[in-house]
This record gives sequence, C-alpha cells and structure tokens, in this order.
Amino acid sequence: MPDRQLAIQRAATETDPSRPVMLAIAGDSASGKTTLTRGIVEALGAHRVVSICVDDYHRYDREERKGLTFTALHPECNYVEIMEQHLQLLATGQPVLKPVYNHDNGRLERPVLVEPRDLVVAEGLLPLFTKMARACFDVRVYLDPPEEVRRIWKIKRDVGKRGYTREQVLAEMERREAESAAFIRPQRAAADIVVSFAPLEGRGESAEHSPSATILLRHTVAHPNLAEIITDDIREAIHLKLTRDEDGRPVDAIHIHGYAPPERTRPIEEAVWAELGVDEPLPDCLGVVGEGERSDSLALTQLLLLYQVIRNRASKPSSEVALP
Amino acid sequence: MPDRQLAIQRAATETDPSRPVMLAIAGDSASGKTTLTRGIVEALGAHRVVSICVDDYHRYDREERKGLTFTALHPECNYVEIMEQHLQLLATGQPVLKPVYNHDNGRLERPVLVEPRDLVVAEGLLPLFTKMARACFDVRVYLDPPEEVRRIWKIKRDVGKRGYTREQVLAEMERREAESAAFIRPQRAAADIVVSFAPLEGRGESAEHSPSATILLRHTVAHPNLAEIITDDIREAIHLKLTRDEDGRPVDAIHIHGYAPPERTRPIEEAVWAELGVDEPLPDCLGVVGEGERSDSLALTQLLLLYQVIRNRASKPSSEVALP
Repeated sequence: MPDRQLAIQRAATETDPSRPVMLAIAGDSASGKTTLTRGIVEALGAHRVVSICVDDYHRYDREERKGLTFTALHPECNYVEIMEQHLQLLATGQPVLKPVYNHDNGRLERPVLVEPRDLVVAEGLLPLFTKMARACFDVRVYLDPPEEVRRIWKIKRDVGKRGYTREQVLAEMERREAESAAFIRPQRAAADIVVSFAPLEGRGESAEHSPSATILLRHTVAHPNLAEIITDDIREAIHLKLTRDEDGRPVDAIHIHGYAPPERTRPIEEAVWAELGVDEPLPDCLGVVGEGERSDSLALTQLLLLYQVIRNRASKPSSEVALP
Repeated sequence: MPDRQLAIQRAATETDPSRPVMLAIAGDSASGKTTLTRGIVEALGAHRVVSICVDDYHRYDREERKGLTFTALHPECNYVEIMEQHLQLLATGQPVLKPVYNHDNGRLERPVLVEPRDLVVAEGLLPLFTKMARACFDVRVYLDPPEEVRRIWKIKRDVGKRGYTREQVLAEMERREAESAAFIRPQRAAADIVVSFAPLEGRGESAEHSPSATILLRHTVAHPNLAEIITDDIREAIHLKLTRDEDGRPVDAIHIHGYAPPERTRPIEEAVWAELGVDEPLPDCLGVVGEGERSDSLALTQLLLLYQVIRNRASKPSSEVALP
C-alpha cells in the first residue's frame, strides 16, 4: 500500500514547514478550474503558491493523438504514473521537472522546474484519478457544472480564445463524452468539496452571469461552523441544507442564489474569514470571473478552500499564517 | 543523511529483482563514454539495459548558455538536484520522465519515459558529482584519457560529426578547462574503476589506434581474481601491478599494451568471463571502437564492468543471469 506509506510519511511530517499544503482541483474541460485557481493564487500571493496543471502529463501531442482511438481524457493518454510520482515528490517538499503541454500549438515542450511553496494547487482532468494521487492531497475539489452550463463555457472559451468553431467544440465534446463519464466524473466521489453551478430558470439567471450554486461539503475534512454563520436573516440569499449525497450518506450543502445582492453575501464571507482568526482583511480578489464580473458562489468556494489551506498551514509552527 | 537512507533502502532490497544494477560512467567530453557504453548494451542486449546520458539534465539550451559566464560543465548549468532525484528513482526500480537535450541543435526538447531494466547505465559529465548521486550506483567508472589523447578524440568527433572547425573545438576546450578541473576531474576519486588510455611513444602507438591503457581497480568493489588469471606467460601483453593510488593508498593496476596481439589478450578475456560462471560464450561485440576497429583495453574494461553487473545481478534470486 504505497498510498498508505505516503499518508504515514505526510502525517509524520505534518508540522514540517517544508511540507506544502496540497490542493486538488479536478473537473472536466471548461468546468472553471483555472478561474477558481486564479483567485486562490491572488489571495495568498504568487510567492506562496505554485499551481500546476496535470494535463501537462499528456503522453502524446495533438498530432500523435489524431491516430489514436481515445482522447486526451483517457488515462492511457497520460503519464499517470509520473503524475502520481511528481505529486508525491511535491507533497513531501521536493522539486520536480514537470513536463509542459502547450495548449496553443498542441506540442509537448521542454520541461520546467517546479519547487513546492506553502501551497501547491494541482488542477486538471485527472488529479484525483488514482488512489495514490488522491493520497497526495490535503483538500480535494471537484467542479461539477451541469453539462449545459459547461457546454456554454467551453464554446465561449474555445471559440473565443483557441480559434475553434462552435461545431468543432460540440463535436469534440461528443467524442469525449464516453471517456468523460468513465474517467473524469467518477472523481466527483473522491472530492471533499463538490461545486455545482446551476442557473435557476425563471429567475433570469444564465450560465454566464453569476449562476446559483450548490457547494457540497463532505465531512472528509473539517469545514468552518456554517450552521452558526448562516443565520435566519440571510437565509434568502444563502442557506445551508442537510441533504443526502449521491451515495445516500448525509452531507451539508450550501446553496447560494445567483440573484443574492453582495450586501447579503458579504457578511457570510466575512464571518467565514473571521473564524480563521487571520489578522488581515478579507482578500477582495475572490469571486472575480473576469472583466469586472464577480460570482458570489465562486467567491464562497474560494473562501472555503482558503479556509482549508490556512487551517492546514496553521498546524506548522514556523510558517507565517498571515495573508498579504 | 539522505544518501545513507538510500544506501539502506537499496541494501534492504538487494535481492529484489525489480531493483536494477546501476552503473555510472563519468568523464569529460569525448573521453570515450559512449563507445564504452555501446559495447555493454550490445553484450547484454538492449532489452536488459537502459542507458541514459545525464547531460540531458542541462538547465539551459545552447542559445541561453551564450549569455552565461559558465559552460555546460558547471553544476549551475545543470539540474543536479533533479538528476539525483531521477537516479534515486531508477535505483529503486521506478520510472522517470527524463529531460532531453538535443546535441545536434542544442535545444531542450520534450522529455521521454525511462523505465529501469536489469541494468541502468548513466553516462555523462557529472554522474558522480554529488554524494547522493554516487550513492545511487553499484559500480562507478571514470574515463581518464590524457588531455592530448582526449583533444585528438574531441577534434575527430566534433569536426567530423558535429560540424565545428578544429579552432572552435580547441577554443571551447580552453574555455572549459577551469571547470573541467573544478567539477569533472574530481569525480576520478569517486570511481571504482579508472581507465587511462596512454599511447606509448616509440612503439608507434597513437591515440586513434588501440592505445595502451592502465585500468585502476580500486577495491571499493570486488574484482575478479586477476592475480591468478594474468599469469607469467602473458605478462608481455598485459600485466597486473601493485601500485599506489593518487591518494597514496595501495591499488591494483592492469596495464595492457596496445601492441599486444589478440591471441595474447583473448585468453585473459576468456578467463575473466569464465570466473563469472555464465553459461554463454564471451560476447564478441566487446572492444569495438567503430568501423571494424578493435581495442583490447576497451574490451577488457567492458569485460570488467560486465563482471560487476552480472555479479550484482546474480544476487537477485529470480533474475536471469545468462547472457544472450
């Protein structure tokens, strides 16, 4: 059980300041991984965080993939064993020479040196795919937008920024569907936090403009005491619900309404922040979606992740806990 | 002492067939590393050996190096820590995603997967540079031709195969001299076997045609019983001499005369081979220098290395010891 060995090694070095906090952000293509990561890096400061994309572990470049029967989502299309190895090395405070996949031209390029910092974020398609990979993380997130929302996001990005046509994007999603179901979506079950964006129809919400969201807080990690924070008077904007997970087990779910005005949600963010006891104001880069737009559900997700990171970091005696 | 930890781990797994035998071949540019390695790979069969060049761990490409005050020989010019890490992983039977430096165009390219086989050969400029790197190997070789011989070899290769002029090669050697003295040559002290080619003047020998050689056998590893093999009647072609190492300690040195006819040296090779008890004939690819030329000193060096490899391998119960 090498994953158990790693868990023991990490437990034994828990108070070692050179052992970074490890955060996984898994999800399908265009599920919001980069946007979520960006706010966390900004909040903690780039000198404290290093983020890697595990899609860099592609085994084949775009040209080579044309001759294959499977897509980039397939574990066979990735050096999963090397990804696991590098996650283990980072999780134990060691540098790695990480491969680089260039999304613009589809080529594999010269690798880069990655040295762990206080926080290592690993985002991508398969960071939670294997037991060993999962054992490397302190906090595991799965981004789970409904397919119709993800489709809108993917078209917007791939047509807008990567030069594809709408039809090409839809055809590619179709081609990837079976592998998405087989390899990407099962990672949802391994997450500590699952974020599902879902615009409420009839409320005028859309996928692009601050949709409502449900954040599932599994008690595989300790979350802030939200029952005390989310009080009756703000229940209209945001509420905590005791519900059942997909496997039937009880779980906490936060529901945030997309139409909730910031004056309703801000106090909740402040309260979560206050519970951490950090002597700094709440970072105002949270929730930024791009071009001046803000999403409360994104902000709260980022805040819950910062909570985990800072709480994990606080157990290390010689680290600085304060934020910039 | 992480190098000690590794030594303990490797000792504990000594009989584990997945733990490869690790062979280092260190030496300056054009000291004969590739030629030496080639015969060993051929003798054991490519399916049993994987050889890597540790110069692939260059931190900068040729273009970037133009702006630096040091050359490719300098540890600062290499990811020495990653080289150490990859050697450790290979030494404990794990794969690595190895960087690739393209000697033809001087660029760093996409990395390749390297999976350990029965034998891993790591050749290059700095494989024995650090204590941790040294701890990874079962057998360590340093190639030590006199500078005037190396100059001839380097001009021959770099002018012939890499498109430089004679003047460029000499200028580059001059530019590298201080770093060669500071970082490459000190590795000689860490080797179990040191090979020094030295053509005997007045005997009509040259650097290019089977020069005489001295093979220093330090007793940091167990060598075949050469005192019994190298008997009086062949003393003219090859002899074993008790001498003092550069640090004053006693050491065995084999001297092979370049003019020795194959009928004189072949029985010695057969006898070393016989001592291994391998049920296969002596591989006839040993000693091949290129284009039909053969060097007895090279053949004997390769044979002494094969002896080490097979002896190390023989301690693993489930491995095949027989050669093809």
